[in-house]
Amino acid sequence: MPDPLALAISTGEPAGIGPDITIGALLRLAGENGHCRYHVLGDAQLLASRAAALGVVHAWDRLLAEGDVIVHHVPLAVACDPGRLDARNGPYVLSMLDAAIAGCRSHPGTPARFAAMVTAPVQKSTINDAGVPFTGHTEYLAEAAGVPRVVMMLAGPQPAHANAMLRVALATTHLPLRAVPDALTVPLLLQTLSIIDADLRRWFGIARPRILVTGLNPHAGESGHMGREEIDIIEPALAQARDAGIDARGPYPADTLFQPRHLRDADCVLAMYHDQGLAPLKYGTFGHGVNITLGLPFIRTSVDHGTALDLAASGQAEHGSMIEAIRSAVTMAGHANGRHAAARPPH
Amino acid sequence: MPDPLALAISTGEPAGIGPDITIGALLRLAGENGHCRYHVLGDAQLLASRAAALGVVHAWDRLLAEGDVIVHHVPLAVACDPGRLDARNGPYVLSMLDAAIAGCRSHPGTPARFAAMVTAPVQKSTINDAGVPFTGHTEYLAEAAGVPRVVMMLAGPQPAHANAMLRVALATTHLPLRAVPDALTVPLLLQTLSIIDADLRRWFGIARPRILVTGLNPHAGESGHMGREEIDIIEPALAQARDAGIDARGPYPADTLFQPRHLRDADCVLAMYHDQGLAPLKYGTFGHGVNITLGLPFIRTSVDHGTALDLAASGQAEHGSMIEAIRSAVTMAGHANGRHAAARPPH
Repeated sequence: MPDPLALAISTGEPAGIGPDITIGALLRLAGENGHCRYHVLGDAQLLASRAAALGVVHAWDRLLAEGDVIVHHVPLAVACDPGRLDARNGPYVLSMLDAAIAGCRSHPGTPARFAAMVTAPVQKSTINDAGVPFTGHTEYLAEAAGVPRVVMMLAGPQPAHANAMLRVALATTHLPLRAVPDALTVPLLLQTLSIIDADLRRWFGIARPRILVTGLNPHAGESGHMGREEIDIIEPALAQARDAGIDARGPYPADTLFQPRHLRDADCVLAMYHDQGLAPLKYGTFGHGVNITLGLPFIRTSVDHGTALDLAASGQAEHGSMIEAIRSAVTMAGHANGRHAAARPPH
Repeated sequence: MPDPLALAISTGEPAGIGPDITIGALLRLAGENGHCRYHVLGDAQLLASRAAALGVVHAWDRLLAEGDVIVHHVPLAVACDPGRLDARNGPYVLSMLDAAIAGCRSHPGTPARFAAMVTAPVQKSTINDAGVPFTGHTEYLAEAAGVPRVVMMLAGPQPAHANAMLRVALATTHLPLRAVPDALTVPLLLQTLSIIDADLRRWFGIARPRILVTGLNPHAGESGHMGREEIDIIEPALAQARDAGIDARGPYPADTLFQPRHLRDADCVLAMYHDQGLAPLKYGTFGHGVNITLGLPFIRTSVDHGTALDLAASGQAEHGSMIEAIRSAVTMAGHANGRHAAARPPH
C-alpha cells in the first residue's frame, strides 16, 4: 500500500466562493480516492463558518475527524464578510499560495510534501490594493518557481464524446488582440511546444503527445492570402519542433479544427491566442474546464472561473469545476509517480 | 392553396461536390415540403452523369418527372471530369450565379421569380484563372445587388439544446488578424447591427431580435486593462444602436459568452472577427452550419464547406449542410411572405 497522495488546496479569496467550493468538492470527493489526502490551506474559523452557512457542519467535521481532509490553518488578518473585499486580507491569500508552493517543492534529500496544488480563485484587486504587485496566479507561481515561461492549458471532458478530453493550450494569453501577431515568434512557439510535449508525457502518461496547432489568421492565412504569420513563423516553428521529436501538426484553420472528428486523435490543441482557443474549449466543455499550468516544477490545477463574490456563503456556487480541478491534479500526480503510466493506449 | 415557393439552387464548381450534394439533398427533401419547387441551375448532362455515379439515376429522373425539381440547363464550356479543375468552366459558374441573382430580383410590376437562392461551393481559383476577378460569393452578390455592405452569418442547431439555433454574425470576415482592430469602427458596427436587426425581423420572424456582442480583446478588455477597443469603439456603437431601437448587448468576453446558458435568450451573437465567432459556432453545430448572407435584397443561403474535389462523384460527400441550407432558405422565404410570422414566441 503506497503512501497516500497529498494534495494542497489553496482556498483563495476569502470573500469569494473559494472556501464554499473547496468544502463542497471535498464532501463529494473524500472517500472516492482512498489513496488521497487533502490538505486545505485557509483560516479554520472561516472554513467552519462557511460550512455552517452551507448547512454541512456535521459532514465537514466528520471529514476532518476521519483525517482524509486536513486543514492547515492560515489566519485571516481581519474577519471576512462573504462578498465584501478587504485589502487587509490580501497578504492572507498570498500566504496560502506561498505555503502551497513551499510544500510542492522538493529539495535534495527532502521529497516534496505535496504531490500537487489546486487553487481556488483569487481577486487580483485585493492583492494589488494591499500594495503587492500581482498580475495573476500563473505569473506568481512562475516567478516563485524560477521558471522563465509557463503555458496555460485548459482541459475538460467533451460531452459529445464519452471519455474524450479536450485540451487547449495558448501561445499567448492576456494580451490585447492588437499585440498578438507581433508576440508570436519562432522561439516562443518552440518553447511552448516543448513545454506541452514534456508535461503531457510527464503528467498525463502520453508516450508521444500529438499536438494540433492553429493558424493565426482566418483559414490559417490561406497560403499567405490573408496574413503571412503562418508561413513566416508558425510553419518554421513546427518544422523545428518536429526535428526535435515533437509530434506537432498544422497550422490548421481554427474554425474547422475544433470539430470532434479532427480532435479525436489529438492530445492537445495549441491555439495562438486567448479567445481562439478558449471560446470553443469552454463551449465544448460547458464551463467545466480545468486550468492547468504547464512548465512548472510541480503540478498546479485551478478552477476555470472567478471569485463570484455575490454567491459566497449562499449555497448557490457550483463546485463542478473544483471537483474536476482536484481530480485532474490527482490523475496527474498518479502519472508523475508512475501509478497510471499505462492508462492510455498509444495512438 | 398558395403558389409553391420557388427556390434557385446554384450547383457551383462542376468538378467539386456541388452537383452531388444538390442531388443528394433534393432526393431527401423533395416531397418533404409540398409547397416548394426547386429550380436547379447547372448543366443537365453533368447532373445526369453525377446521378449515375451516385447510383440514383431512377430516383433523380423520377424527381424531375414529378416536377418538384426543375433543371434549368446552363451549358458547361467543356466536359468536366470530377475532381479536375478547368478554368474554361469558370464563366459557367458565374452564369449560374447570374441566373440565380436575376431570378431573385423583383422589379416594379414584376415579382421575383425565385423566393431565395441556395449556393453550392465554388472554387475561387477557377474563376480567377478564367480572368475574372472574384473574391467570393458574398462579395459578388453584394456587387451584383448594388448594396454597400453585407453581413456573413452562420447558423446551426445546437445539439445540446433541442430546437435551439445558434446564429453567429461577423463584424469582419476574411482579414488578416493583424488588420482586425483597425477595421472596427463605430459606423461599421452600427451598420452591421442594423442589418442583423432588420434581417432577423424580415426573414426570421423575430419581433425584437436580441443581439449579444463580443468584445475584441480577452475578457472584453477587462475595463481597458487589455485593450481599449471595447471602450472606444464597441460600447459607443452599442449605445447608438440601442438609441436606434436595436436590442444589442455587450460587449461580453467571447470565451464565456459561448455557453448554452448565455445563448439561451440570444437570437444572434455578433463576433468581432472570423475565428472568434466561427470556431465555437462550428464546434457547437458539428459542422452543420448554414452560411446566410444578410443585407442583400434577396435571401441567400449556402453550405458551410468547400468544393471537396477529391470526393466529387464518389458517393462519399455529405449533403447534411446542403439540406440545412435549403431548409433555412425555405423557412426564411416563408417568413418573408408572412407564412410563418407567428412561429416564434416573443422573449
